[in-house]
Amino acid sequence: MRQEVDLLIKNVMILPVVPKGSVIRNGFIAISDGKIKDFGPMEKMSNLVGKEVLSGKGMCALPGLINTHTHAPMTLLRGVGDGLPLDKWLKEAIWPREAKLSEEDIYWGTMLACLEMIMSGTTCFVDMYLKEDGVAKAVLDSGLRAFLSYGMIDLGSEEKREQELKITRDFVKRWHGAGEGRIRCMIAPHAPYTCSKELLLASKAMADEMKIMLNIHLSETKTEVQKIKELTGMRPVEYLESLNFLGPNVLAAHCVWLSNEEIRLLAKRGVSVSHCPSSNAKLGSGIAPVKELISEGANVTIGTDGCASNDDLDMFEEMRLACFLQRVRLLDPTAMKALDALEMATINAAHALKIEKEIGSIEKGKKADIILVNLDVPRLVPLNDLVSNLVFSASGNNVKSVIVNGRLLMKNGKVLSMEEDRVLKEACSRLL
Amino acid sequence: MRQEVDLLIKNVMILPVVPKGSVIRNGFIAISDGKIKDFGPMEKMSNLVGKEVLSGKGMCALPGLINTHTHAPMTLLRGVGDGLPLDKWLKEAIWPREAKLSEEDIYWGTMLACLEMIMSGTTCFVDMYLKEDGVAKAVLDSGLRAFLSYGMIDLGSEEKREQELKITRDFVKRWHGAGEGRIRCMIAPHAPYTCSKELLLASKAMADEMKIMLNIHLSETKTEVQKIKELTGMRPVEYLESLNFLGPNVLAAHCVWLSNEEIRLLAKRGVSVSHCPSSNAKLGSGIAPVKELISEGANVTIGTDGCASNDDLDMFEEMRLACFLQRVRLLDPTAMKALDALEMATINAAHALKIEKEIGSIEKGKKADIILVNLDVPRLVPLNDLVSNLVFSASGNNVKSVIVNGRLLMKNGKVLSMEEDRVLKEACSRLL
Repeated sequence: MRQEVDLLIKNVMILPVVPKGSVIRNGFIAISDGKIKDFGPMEKMSNLVGKEVLSGKGMCALPGLINTHTHAPMTLLRGVGDGLPLDKWLKEAIWPREAKLSEEDIYWGTMLACLEMIMSGTTCFVDMYLKEDGVAKAVLDSGLRAFLSYGMIDLGSEEKREQELKITRDFVKRWHGAGEGRIRCMIAPHAPYTCSKELLLASKAMADEMKIMLNIHLSETKTEVQKIKELTGMRPVEYLESLNFLGPNVLAAHCVWLSNEEIRLLAKRGVSVSHCPSSNAKLGSGIAPVKELISEGANVTIGTDGCASNDDLDMFEEMRLACFLQRVRLLDPTAMKALDALEMATINAAHALKIEKEIGSIEKGKKADIILVNLDVPRLVPLNDLVSNLVFSASGNNVKSVIVNGRLLMKNGKVLSMEEDRVLKEACSRLL
Repeated sequence: MRQEVDLLIKNVMILPVVPKGSVIRNGFIAISDGKIKDFGPMEKMSNLVGKEVLSGKGMCALPGLINTHTHAPMTLLRGVGDGLPLDKWLKEAIWPREAKLSEEDIYWGTMLACLEMIMSGTTCFVDMYLKEDGVAKAVLDSGLRAFLSYGMIDLGSEEKREQELKITRDFVKRWHGAGEGRIRCMIAPHAPYTCSKELLLASKAMADEMKIMLNIHLSETKTEVQKIKELTGMRPVEYLESLNFLGPNVLAAHCVWLSNEEIRLLAKRGVSVSHCPSSNAKLGSGIAPVKELISEGANVTIGTDGCASNDDLDMFEEMRLACFLQRVRLLDPTAMKALDALEMATINAAHALKIEKEIGSIEKGKKADIILVNLDVPRLVPLNDLVSNLVFSASGNNVKSVIVNGRLLMKNGKVLSMEEDRVLKEACSRLL
């Protein structure tokens, strides 16, 4: 008897990521009600038929990539102030422009980011910015999945702190679970050097109370570590530990400058790290000790950071660079394998966000967040090693189809959930 | 009166690279007899008409990128043996496969490389490999410009040395100046650690006699420096200096491990360096002291190296990574600017190859080696900074049209000089 599903992908190579290293050379994926109903080799497809059928010939299906650290609206600031020293860059190029951003600017900047992410195979992202409602509205419209947070900064002011906490609480109430559950919220004290102890503690309490995650910048630059040491006598991770801030509900971005003790502490407390290789290289921040973090058992994921410090949102580049930077830092080509990077960008990220039962791999019953990469292009042949080709040779531009929550957001290179021309026009009209 | 040219590009943004930093927002480029007859803002196009007209709307024209170090046929080994320690990788994964390569394999591997290079905006490349006739035939057919060399290795054997020198001499006689001058040859003693002193001296003499350039690997790994020190009591650059090998006709690839004295020596002798950031990172070799080389006045260019250690031929990635690696090595975001990288990949490379009067920039009278990058895509808007967007946000996939020697090799994404399907099929049938 025929069994009908919403979407049936046929004749596709499948890299499910879980179980580790498994590959189906010529398979099918059946999707219904937003979920992966079944998948396997073509000969086991039996009586399945699709309301919609997508040919996967010459393509590889893999779990959608998860970008665990970005500031989506910063697409509008792409290329601004490059080559300036860090403090000048922030104070003269970035902050004055950010101060002028309206919620509508934020919306269109995020629409542009979503368009770029869809076209380069990212299906879920973690965001921290200001006027985050604009970001949420864009995510709603784009069809992507996202974890959103308003970045709180009090610089020690009690009044500002109360305002920031209120904005966050209201934001979470409005948006947590919106868009058929595609949008989830996080509590984001910006960083230990921009938030008071009180704000860090209040954030932690709010996250525990609301049962949602914490999102924070941590030890991105050497200067920042020095600052915290001067203020508290402790290094940043030790300082957060002293506040009982660290735990499995913390996602910490950057983590470039860590002592061995701090590495062990992050691992022990179950903190997940968002490694941002391009940003840390472009801004001259440093190379995070990713290999050591993994060795100690910490969960490491990958983020692009905002577009002004990258300057794109292509997670394929980040996977490649994550491997390159560990290898060149340690002068060891075995320091990080292609598969490690792919896991960081998929299943590790799902673990970090506590939704490893929902996304991060192609498994029966999981939500259908899947991308199809065109393998039939000069830079991806011959196929001596599938994972190596995906991580070291592919670019986001090789992604042809993208599915989130079972819905086709891009089909054979054509974005379906957004009007590409309109987004480009709106974003370009906002030169700051 | 109407003045007819072979090819007229209209309404295109132009980044000529020389003079430094100049940009024409809406211009034309007129090409006849393989050369740039004229270019400038649209209002100065006057009475020019083209036998063929190409719209440059939404695109930026820049000089074709020049890849100064690769082993083109290694596309066939893409992804082979990744993550192995360097000596195992060479001895177990690469060399046994290379030993099996026929000249026909080399031809098709190079055809694949040429296809990938055309599609990602490279118009000229420097090659060193074995059975180099196969490479030359492919370059002839692809329409690209190239500097080709047979990599000589004698490991101290006089008999082998004579053979290698004869192969080189014959190769140069057969190919130097072929393909309407698109093909030029170089003399390539592989490296100081694989060539005897006699072979290095004979190579130098042959290059001087034939008035062509030398192409050599130099100080790629720490191990190699140690080896030369044990053999000669000198570091590799000092050793080559002691042989009077160094001069403006030397192109030295990698140059990762250099003492300050060696940096000064390379600059003083006018040696050009081919910096290979991806390969040096992927293989865990190290980060070349590019900033110091430039400070001392050395001419630095960029190479991808072969596809087994990269694993693609995308010069946009190399430009980006060149900046990233200098900045992160020196913890300084001002260490290398986007424009520095673009010059390394264009005019500096032309200088290195002594054809700065022919290519490397868009200037009147120069050969028409030009690429058109599509700026009208999500990852390249808004256009806050053209050069930053090209270097940090573009991928080779954003290149839409490619002209070499005045001939359109790719037009609006369609390669004209090669049959893409056939090349992919032939290359994929050669899994080693």
